[in-house]
Amino acid sequence: MSTATFTPTAAQPTSAQSNAASRPLAAVTGAELQAPLIQGGHVRYANLDYGASAPALTVVSAHLNEILPFYASVHRGAGYASQISTSVYENSRNIVREFVGGRPDDSVIFTRNTTDSLNLLAGCLPVQDGEHTGEVLYLDIEHHANLLPWQGVPHRSIVAADTLAETIANVRAALQQGGVSLLAVTGASNVTGEILPIAALATLAHQYGARIVVDAAQLAPHRRINIAASDVDYLVFSGHKLYAPFGAGVLVGRPDWLDAGTPHLAGGGAVREARLDSVSWATGPARHEGGSPNVLGAATLARATQVLASLDQDAWHAHEAAIRSHLVEGLNRIDGVTVHQIFSDTDTENDTIGVVNFSVQGFDAGLVAAYLAAEHGIGLRDGRFCAHPLLKRLGLPSGSLRASFGVGSRLEDATRLLAGIEELKRTGLGWDYVVDAGRWVPANDHRSYPEWAPNTPGTAGAAPCTID
Amino acid sequence: MSTATFTPTAAQPTSAQSNAASRPLAAVTGAELQAPLIQGGHVRYANLDYGASAPALTVVSAHLNEILPFYASVHRGAGYASQISTSVYENSRNIVREFVGGRPDDSVIFTRNTTDSLNLLAGCLPVQDGEHTGEVLYLDIEHHANLLPWQGVPHRSIVAADTLAETIANVRAALQQGGVSLLAVTGASNVTGEILPIAALATLAHQYGARIVVDAAQLAPHRRINIAASDVDYLVFSGHKLYAPFGAGVLVGRPDWLDAGTPHLAGGGAVREARLDSVSWATGPARHEGGSPNVLGAATLARATQVLASLDQDAWHAHEAAIRSHLVEGLNRIDGVTVHQIFSDTDTENDTIGVVNFSVQGFDAGLVAAYLAAEHGIGLRDGRFCAHPLLKRLGLPSGSLRASFGVGSRLEDATRLLAGIEELKRTGLGWDYVVDAGRWVPANDHRSYPEWAPNTPGTAGAAPCTID
Repeated sequence: MSTATFTPTAAQPTSAQSNAASRPLAAVTGAELQAPLIQGGHVRYANLDYGASAPALTVVSAHLNEILPFYASVHRGAGYASQISTSVYENSRNIVREFVGGRPDDSVIFTRNTTDSLNLLAGCLPVQDGEHTGEVLYLDIEHHANLLPWQGVPHRSIVAADTLAETIANVRAALQQGGVSLLAVTGASNVTGEILPIAALATLAHQYGARIVVDAAQLAPHRRINIAASDVDYLVFSGHKLYAPFGAGVLVGRPDWLDAGTPHLAGGGAVREARLDSVSWATGPARHEGGSPNVLGAATLARATQVLASLDQDAWHAHEAAIRSHLVEGLNRIDGVTVHQIFSDTDTENDTIGVVNFSVQGFDAGLVAAYLAAEHGIGLRDGRFCAHPLLKRLGLPSGSLRASFGVGSRLEDATRLLAGIEELKRTGLGWDYVVDAGRWVPANDHRSYPEWAPNTPGTAGAAPCTID
Repeated sequence: MSTATFTPTAAQPTSAQSNAASRPLAAVTGAELQAPLIQGGHVRYANLDYGASAPALTVVSAHLNEILPFYASVHRGAGYASQISTSVYENSRNIVREFVGGRPDDSVIFTRNTTDSLNLLAGCLPVQDGEHTGEVLYLDIEHHANLLPWQGVPHRSIVAADTLAETIANVRAALQQGGVSLLAVTGASNVTGEILPIAALATLAHQYGARIVVDAAQLAPHRRINIAASDVDYLVFSGHKLYAPFGAGVLVGRPDWLDAGTPHLAGGGAVREARLDSVSWATGPARHEGGSPNVLGAATLARATQVLASLDQDAWHAHEAAIRSHLVEGLNRIDGVTVHQIFSDTDTENDTIGVVNFSVQGFDAGLVAAYLAAEHGIGLRDGRFCAHPLLKRLGLPSGSLRASFGVGSRLEDATRLLAGIEELKRTGLGWDYVVDAGRWVPANDHRSYPEWAPNTPGTAGAAPCTID
C-alpha cells in the first residue's frame, strides 16, 4: 500500500500556538504508529483519546523493562530480587505522595484504577454504632466512578447550575444543611475538561465539618496538585490516564478513616492474624491491598509521576493550551459544530485541561468517530463518557464527541481533526458505514490487523457504557 | 568485585533428574540476574519463590512490548489503536477460556488477582428474599484468599484429616448435612504443593446440590486443567504466579450467579444506564469490571496461558518432578531437616506441584531464608504463607520455609539450596544477622543496589502476613 499524504485544509494554527506545541512535549510509546486507512494507505495515528487511556511514556516503558528482570515476590521474601521488588513497590508510595504534595502521614494505597480507589473509600466512611455518621454529597457532573460508589452509602446529590459561581453557592447551601461527612468532587470534568476550584471547595467542606475527596483521574495528568496546600483530604487517580497503563491506580489521603474502614479485599496480606472463622485486620496500606500487589503497575505509575513532576510547568501549560485553543477556535469556525461546556463562567484559557467536547450537526457522534478513524486515522471518543446524568442535562442524551490530548500530542493532531470535520461538512462521507453490534463501522472493511488482534474491527464484548 | 564460584557439595542429582531438568523448560526474564553476596562477589540468583510470584516468561515480556505501541482506550473508541486494544482485551477472554477448558458460555472476568476473584465470587452467591440460599464450605488448609472472602457470608469450615481419603469423607459428611451452596477448595496447596482431586470433589459437591470453586492460583501454573471435563463450576487464578506479573487475575465460570450478583466495583463500564441516584447494572464481564480494565495485564496473562498450553505435558511434568524429587530426597538426607506435608496418603510422585515445604531444626525459618539469600544468592519463602490455620495445625505456628519453582527453574537451583543447608548444618552461619523491623537481615550490609530501589535491604512497609 502507498502511504497517504496529509493535506491540511483547516485553519492553520497561529505562530504562538506552533511555537508551543508543534512537537510532543514528551516521548510516548507508539507515537509513530501507522493507522491503515479504509481507502488504502496509512497515516500516523492521531491519538486524541488521552482522556480515556493515555499511551505509556517512553521513559515509563523503559523503566518497566529495566525492573522486570528483578521482579519477584514482595514483602516476605528474603531473596535479592524480592528485596529489590519490595523496595520498588514500597518506595513507589513515597514517590506518589511527593507528587501530590501529600502530608507525611497520608496513606498511599495502590488500587486498580480510580473507580477502585473510590469504591475503597466508600467502604471507609465513618460509622458509629453501625450507622454512617454522615452523607456523601456529590454533583451531577461527575464521572460514574465518582457517582456510583456513593449510591451504596447515605448520599445526597445536587444538580450543577449554569455557572460555577452559582454551583459553588449551591454546594455551600447543601453543606449548610448539615449531615455531610464527605464532599466528592472531580478535579476536572472528563466530559469538557473544565477545572473545578478544589482548594475553595476544600475550605467550604471543612467549614461545615465535612471532608473532601477529589477525583483527579483527569486533573493529575494535566496539572500539578498539592493536597497539603489545598487542604484536600483524599485524592484518587489512575495510571492508565497518567502515562503508566499497567493496571494500577491510587488513593492518597488521611489515614484515620482508612485504618478503621472495611478492608477493601479480604485476603492474604491484609491481615495480622487469620483464624479459621475470624480475622484480625492489619492497618496501613496492607489493610486494603489484599492479595499480591501489582508491583510493576505501582512502580510505573510512580515513574510517570516523576516525569510529570520534572516538566517545566509553563511549557507544559502552554503546550496543552495551544492545542486546545487551536482546536476550539477551529471547531467554532465550522458551521454546525458546537463545542460544549458545563459552566458559562469557566475561564477557558486557564481553567481547562486537554479535553474538548463537541457535536457535529446532522451526524451521529458514533458515525463521525468511525469516519475520522477510517478515513483520517484519528482516534477520539464518542458516547456519553460514563457521565450519563451530565450528558442528559446538557441535552446530549445520545452522546457527543470528545477529543483529548496530553504530553505526547502535537498541534498537527488538532489540525488533522479540524481538516477531517471540514471535509465531512464539505464533501460528506467518503465510504459507506453500517451499524454493527450498536456501533458505526465502515462497511466492507478489509484492512489487515496484527495477528494477535484477530477480531478487529469491531468491539465484540464491549461494555455497554463508555469506559473512562 | 569478583564473581563467586559455586562449589556443589550437596548430593548430586541422578542422571534421570539431570536429563529432565538440567536446563529451564522455558526462558524467563531475569533468568541470569546476578545477586550480590554479603561476603563479596555475585552469583546467579536462584529464584525458588515461584509460588509467590513467578518471573515473566520471555515470550510474555516480548508480547507486552509488541502490543504496547498499540495501547489505547478500549471498548468505545473507534480509533485504530482502540480497536486493536479492544480486540486484544476481549480476545484474551477466549484464550483463557480455552486454556482452562471452559464451557462456551462460561464468563471470563478479569480481576486483579486470585484474592480479588474470590471476593468477587463471594458477592455473587445466590440470594433469595435478601438471604443467602446456602453456606460456603471450606477446609482449613486454604490460603487466606480462599478463607477470608467467605467469612463475610454464611459459611462452615472443617479441619482436614491426616489423610486425603478421610478428609474427602469429612467433606462428604459436611455436604450431606445439607445447606451448602458452594464448596471452595484449592487445586494445590500453596504451603506443601499437594494436589487435591478436584474432579472427585466436583462430583461430590454436585451430588449434594452444591457448586464448586477451585482456587487454581497454584495449580494452573503447573498442570493443565479442564473445567468442563472436571465439571468445575468456577476457577480462579493469578497472572503473577502464571508468568505474567502485570496485575491481572481471572475468574472463569458459570454465568448465572455472576450475572445476578453484586457488581464487584461500582463505576464506569459496569452499567447500562446511570442516573443521579440509581443505576441499571450490566450483565456479562462488564458488570464486574468497573473502571478502565487492565488491558495489558489481561493480554499478557492470555499470552502466558498459550505458552503453557504449548508445552509437552510429559516433559513439563518430568522437569518439575525431577527438581522436586531431587530437592525432597536431598532435604530428607540432611539431619534435622523436616519436609512437611498435609496428607500422609498423598501420591508425592504424581500429585504434587513444584512446592516443597521444610524446616531446619535449631534455626528460625526467617534466619535460614536470610542466610540463603545473603550467602548463597537464593530466594525462597519463609513464614506462614498466608495460611495461618494450616501452619498452626501442622505445629508450625512461627512458620517454615518454602522452595517453589517452575518452568524457568533448573536442577542446579535445588542443588544450590541443598548445598546451602548442608553448609549451614556443617559450619553454621558465615555472617552476623540481626532482626530489623521483625525480619532477619544481615548485619552491616553494604551491598549496592539499583538506584531505583533506594531503601533496600529491608522490607519497610511490608504487609504483616506473608503475601502469596
